[in-house]
Amino acid sequence: MLRHLIQPLDFTTEEFDDLFRLANKIIQNPENYLDVCKGKLLASLFFEPSTRTRLSFESAMLRLGGQVVGFSDAKVSSTAKGESLQDTIRTVENYADICAMRHPKEGAALLAAKAMTRMPIINAGDGGHQHPTQTLADLLTIDYYKKRFDNLTIGVCGDLKFGRTIHSLVRAMNRYEGVKFVFISPDELRMPKTFKDEIAKENYIETSDLSEAIKNGLDILYMSRVQRERFVSEEEYLRLKDFFILDKEKMNLAKEDMIVLHPLPRVNEISTEIDDDPRAVYFEQARFGMYVRMALIMFLLGLEA
Amino acid sequence: MLRHLIQPLDFTTEEFDDLFRLANKIIQNPENYLDVCKGKLLASLFFEPSTRTRLSFESAMLRLGGQVVGFSDAKVSSTAKGESLQDTIRTVENYADICAMRHPKEGAALLAAKAMTRMPIINAGDGGHQHPTQTLADLLTIDYYKKRFDNLTIGVCGDLKFGRTIHSLVRAMNRYEGVKFVFISPDELRMPKTFKDEIAKENYIETSDLSEAIKNGLDILYMSRVQRERFVSEEEYLRLKDFFILDKEKMNLAKEDMIVLHPLPRVNEISTEIDDDPRAVYFEQARFGMYVRMALIMFLLGLEA
Amino acid sequence: MLRHLIQPLDFTTEEFDDLFRLANKIIQNPENYLDVCKGKLLASLFFEPSTRTRLSFESAMLRLGGQVVGFSDAKVSSTAKGESLQDTIRTVENYADICAMRHPKEGAALLAAKAMTRMPIINAGDGGHQHPTQTLADLLTIDYYKKRFDNLTIGVCGDLKFGRTIHSLVRAMNRYEGVKFVFISPDELRMPKTFKDEIAKENYIETSDLSEAIKNGLDILYMSRVQRERFVSEEEYLRLKDFFILDKEKMNLAKEDMIVLHPLPRVNEISTEIDDDPRAVYFEQARFGMYVRMALIMFLLGLEA
Repeated sequence: MLRHLIQPLDFTTEEFDDLFRLANKIIQNPENYLDVCKGKLLASLFFEPSTRTRLSFESAMLRLGGQVVGFSDAKVSSTAKGESLQDTIRTVENYADICAMRHPKEGAALLAAKAMTRMPIINAGDGGHQHPTQTLADLLTIDYYKKRFDNLTIGVCGDLKFGRTIHSLVRAMNRYEGVKFVFISPDELRMPKTFKDEIAKENYIETSDLSEAIKNGLDILYMSRVQRERFVSEEEYLRLKDFFILDKEKMNLAKEDMIVLHPLPRVNEISTEIDDDPRAVYFEQARFGMYVRMALIMFLLGLEA
Repeated sequence: MLRHLIQPLDFTTEEFDDLFRLANKIIQNPENYLDVCKGKLLASLFFEPSTRTRLSFESAMLRLGGQVVGFSDAKVSSTAKGESLQDTIRTVENYADICAMRHPKEGAALLAAKAMTRMPIINAGDGGHQHPTQTLADLLTIDYYKKRFDNLTIGVCGDLKFGRTIHSLVRAMNRYEGVKFVFISPDELRMPKTFKDEIAKENYIETSDLSEAIKNGLDILYMSRVQRERFVSEEEYLRLKDFFILDKEKMNLAKEDMIVLHPLPRVNEISTEIDDDPRAVYFEQARFGMYVRMALIMFLLGLEA
Repeated sequence: MLRHLIQPLDFTTEEFDDLFRLANKIIQNPENYLDVCKGKLLASLFFEPSTRTRLSFESAMLRLGGQVVGFSDAKVSSTAKGESLQDTIRTVENYADICAMRHPKEGAALLAAKAMTRMPIINAGDGGHQHPTQTLADLLTIDYYKKRFDNLTIGVCGDLKFGRTIHSLVRAMNRYEGVKFVFISPDELRMPKTFKDEIAKENYIETSDLSEAIKNGLDILYMSRVQRERFVSEEEYLRLKDFFILDKEKMNLAKEDMIVLHPLPRVNEISTEIDDDPRAVYFEQARFGMYVRMALIMFLLGLEA
């Protein structure tokens, strides 16, 4: 059966286990995978630019010995001539074996997937909606450093109201036993009720005090950007932003093995002074993002691990 | 001798036969051609965007084990600094082994070809002028489904006045014995006299009735876009456009083995309701476009079949 | 130790010798190098467009069996979201093995290099500042045709005031014994004092007469563009520009083995009528630019020659 990855939880936890097991094997011996995608083509269709995500997908395919065709910008695509997305993608299906697609419209990836007869679609972001491979990158990073997904206390900090990567991560982690969440945000940007309702009451707390949250003992701290335009006023933004900046002082309060994640790009919510702290793993996280995409491509192409 | 492909009929029918024979061999066993272009570079120079054509060429080269460098947009090229096209292309000749070039100016491909000392040029479209690899894709599709080029009745429908792909196809097919043409268009967009004069009087008829033409028995129906701006008025466009839309009802009048071609992109001239009809082969036609480009690259590089 | 190439003279003359020896071996037997970079990725990061340089780097990597990811234009990069250059480049370090970077800001390449933990950076141009691989291309061309760097008389003609490639070439050649310079330019565009001060008085002369300079016997003539906007007035430009155009008449005054170099693109400062003169080697120079980049990539990756 033709499989796609459209939403973060399209895969079962068992499938996640398989995927991360493969990703870890690739990390251990990347040289064993130099030719597994020989003769295969990835269509890298970015209807809106996202350099980081695009480079990660393309590097993943190339490191598997596959090749890449595509575009990095909507302007260059022929939807300009009035062609439907389905027609565009069905044409591409004749050239390529697998597709990573980013699109400004919500639901575009699902629409594309439904038109396919043989090419798997990976949603590389559709509007403000879903970005499942970011979640895979987050999970593989946790798996690599913590060797488990259960019984972890995870602080998530920043814009919890609109942050789609945070919503996906929380949902994914909530599938495991004994996971506790600490939601750290300004009042204006608290986690929406709909997401909290999915979590058992005893498994989360909410706070606006990042230092306190760290001091109380986190295994993982997931930082994210707080965008200026989310605040009711510039004064409010200036008043609050420093509370949500992770710096050396706050890191001194943290457990010795607490890891710090961030989906990147960061602006100023993590001080560069902690970049060299071994617990700051956000650049490694980018690397794991590439490795998990390698595993994902192999999985969707049905290639042997 | 250095060969290029600038115009659709630059090759003899014998050369076409060789090319399609090779293309069919590739279709049968693509895995035999995974390394034939190893160490070769295609320069993919798109001085104006054309994603579909570009992806087809690049996929073709990559599926032969070759590599690709280039650009997808004029802005990115250094003609901005006042460099001549000849200088640009002679520089590229130092990097690449073969070149697919699209340019907004008529005659650009020929100009480039004349400046070459060792690199074959493939015209991927120059202005409204020529687009020879589209014609190759059309012919390979006919060859694949009909196993012959002679004694066929071909309906061509749409904008016959300005449609360059249609002009090229008609000229190419007119080289074979017993080919009959049915030109189907609004009065405003009839086939120009210059093209009709090349065809024996008894070998073509003209009509504005698509249903009637189909009912009278076509082996091939080649559909194309009718652009709104070609009509004298919006009213005229709205009055006429439905007559030239291929839908289920009209398909019911067709022969069981009539195939439907379209160069794509389509807008609404073919209803999506017939996409699953096995006679609708326009998406396969895109696939054949890639295969014929693979054969063409091998041919121009003088590589053994 | 992690090595980068940021400035033209980052390498010693001994390292230059090694580099050109390797480049010459690649020129002799390119087929021996088809797989040396297998499994390696070049990040081709062009924060401003420069098609010629980009294609040269990408061709170089692909001809070594490596692969390429990147972008050709600033707009497409995620610095738009307020990310620092260091963060961007540290993220890319997780995907790629080596990086060629062009940036509009002076010093950007050095800044990037300092942030690296394992990825070598090649400066592909930073602002009006440095463009070291052009200098490598110039030197390899001289090495190929003259088999030596010492005891040569080099005429450099054009905009000597602002021409960064000329400044770098002069500095590089001045490291060798018995090299004489003839600086040929309009008065407004003479070689700056700071560069002349580095050269022994007896080793250079200045003139505004190109014909005379050629007649007096040059081994190498390095031509460059004289940009209209550098002149005090349009009249001045029109009065002077013809004196600095190399044509057949002036070539007739030259030594039989004088070679003509130009970094390209040219506008009109070299008449196309001399393109077929075997002494006009500027297109070959572009080819040597690719070969020297192949050698450079191998050198910085620590690959065996």
